[in-house]
Amino acid sequence: QIGWAPLYAPQALRKELGCRDLYVKDDGRNPTASLKDRASGVGVTRARELGCEVICAASTGNAATSLSGLAASVGIQTVIFVPERAPKAKLAQLLIFGSTVVMVKGSYDEAFELSIGASEHFNWYNRNCGYNPYLVEGKKTGIWEVLEQLDFEVPDLVFTPLGDGCITSSIHKGLKDMLVLGLINRMPRIIAVQAAGACPLKTAWETGRPLEPVVPDTLADSIAVGHPRNALKALKAIRQTDGEVMAVSDDEILEAMRVLGRLTGVFGEPAGVTAMAGVMQARSSGRITGQEKIVVMITGNGLKDVDSAIKASGEPLKVAPDMDEVVATLSEKF
Amino acid sequence: QIGWAPLYAPQALRKELGCRDLYVKDDGRNPTASLKDRASGVGVTRARELGCEVICAASTGNAATSLSGLAASVGIQTVIFVPERAPKAKLAQLLIFGSTVVMVKGSYDEAFELSIGASEHFNWYNRNCGYNPYLVEGKKTGIWEVLEQLDFEVPDLVFTPLGDGCITSSIHKGLKDMLVLGLINRMPRIIAVQAAGACPLKTAWETGRPLEPVVPDTLADSIAVGHPRNALKALKAIRQTDGEVMAVSDDEILEAMRVLGRLTGVFGEPAGVTAMAGVMQARSSGRITGQEKIVVMITGNGLKDVDSAIKASGEPLKVAPDMDEVVATLSEKF
Repeated sequence: QIGWAPLYAPQALRKELGCRDLYVKDDGRNPTASLKDRASGVGVTRARELGCEVICAASTGNAATSLSGLAASVGIQTVIFVPERAPKAKLAQLLIFGSTVVMVKGSYDEAFELSIGASEHFNWYNRNCGYNPYLVEGKKTGIWEVLEQLDFEVPDLVFTPLGDGCITSSIHKGLKDMLVLGLINRMPRIIAVQAAGACPLKTAWETGRPLEPVVPDTLADSIAVGHPRNALKALKAIRQTDGEVMAVSDDEILEAMRVLGRLTGVFGEPAGVTAMAGVMQARSSGRITGQEKIVVMITGNGLKDVDSAIKASGEPLKVAPDMDEVVATLSEKF
Repeated sequence: QIGWAPLYAPQALRKELGCRDLYVKDDGRNPTASLKDRASGVGVTRARELGCEVICAASTGNAATSLSGLAASVGIQTVIFVPERAPKAKLAQLLIFGSTVVMVKGSYDEAFELSIGASEHFNWYNRNCGYNPYLVEGKKTGIWEVLEQLDFEVPDLVFTPLGDGCITSSIHKGLKDMLVLGLINRMPRIIAVQAAGACPLKTAWETGRPLEPVVPDTLADSIAVGHPRNALKALKAIRQTDGEVMAVSDDEILEAMRVLGRLTGVFGEPAGVTAMAGVMQARSSGRITGQEKIVVMITGNGLKDVDSAIKASGEPLKVAPDMDEVVATLSEKF
């Protein structure tokens, strides 16, 4: 059962940021703990319709874990190529869902090439091959849900993380559907937020020049994309909605993770809270006034990257088993 | 938003186990990824009603992370005492939710005592103090949901993990409510499953003698309980429903984690899949026929314990970035 996640109206966070009408969508509540389940739900259904018995992909991220989990639920086998430095939690998900995981002693690009070669050799359906038009149909349900949860009162701004550009363009598609159906009467502005260490789309947006790939360097692994696959559609989505592309540093991402957790009880992974970091930067720089109706998309659960969370939040207080020491330590704070 | 989690009718799992009418309740889909959110939701609401500003607890488990996350969402501070060997993912949750985490260089028992002392000193509400009658009112919503999802067709058997006994007795309470309300016309049998390395209730059940505490030794940390706090109520729940107490080994738990992930796409932590291990043991030993209507409670998400998952599932295949090697390696399997 995919595709329902809560939309929160977090009072303490609104107060802290001075954003009176802010909403947080926790898509880390999906079955494999990321928004990607919305896409995989449709993708796996389509693969089943085509009679596929094996799906092959190269990824270390939520797209693969989601594909793996949802394919498992309907008895389709998956072969996933990952580079050596695959994050542990996502690797654990792939293995538990019974994927055949092929760890390539090499880069992501090499894993990608091998997945194409293996798919051809074994005649498997390859999820990477070209553009899959079905996935966006799944992803767009995220913004549909948001609109329904807002009683179709259109937000002024929708903040989303931006890596490959797929989520950004899916939000645009979902909004356009609602507009055509007459369920909303105007479009929100889409504000897409990249990690500063992997922001080729921000550069292209600002300079107006064609996209130039970069070597990604950010702890937000799910959006550490040097060469975005869906660049054109994402930029179109942003342009057509009078939106914007922003970039936030890893420190801003960790701060957003902390603030979100402490004030709302929502725990996002680094890429998952990047849109939140964008709101915080936009508010403190005065680019938004705080009067807007704002929706922030949290796209993945923090349990997928525990090390970054500990990095964000610092170490616990440490005490000997001694009451006097406990009282002395805590008296500094309470 | 607490308290809705999917109930699956997993076809492939039913076929594999020969259980024709088996259902899986994935309570790892709750806000902080465990069933405990149901209890914390009510507990935090009650603390708020009492005007508490700080809640103190000693725990390394889901009860603490859940309390921490839900208290954060309503602006109540939490002070959590943990022993040194607290699991990393749960520690990360506590820290991100902004709890003051006091790591005691000592045992859980010492952390527990210090939490009592600190609560008295600072005049905090202590979640450990005595029996809190509100929590069970939250927890029982799990079985309520199951009954609603089953259209109030009563299952024959409900399998639940058993540590302290709180979940077991909450299932009993929820069922009794439904019986009194006339929404069901009979009680299912409650089958409570302990880890073999921490099964004092199984021993008490089988021998009829009073409970004797044990030193827990199991990887299922959430039910690694040597001295269950809710023993009497749990045993009464099992007795009154003509139920049973079982024990499963750590190997059986890891096997259940694998089978569940591979055939349903549900990823449970070790304690979370203990009830599933119970079903598998009961089926292979012939204690159940496979004709029963069975509900299995999965109580926590596997992302909380990635190391056990990797232990359960084994390592990935490893290859050099070379197509011939890839084909040779995969040809053994496909």
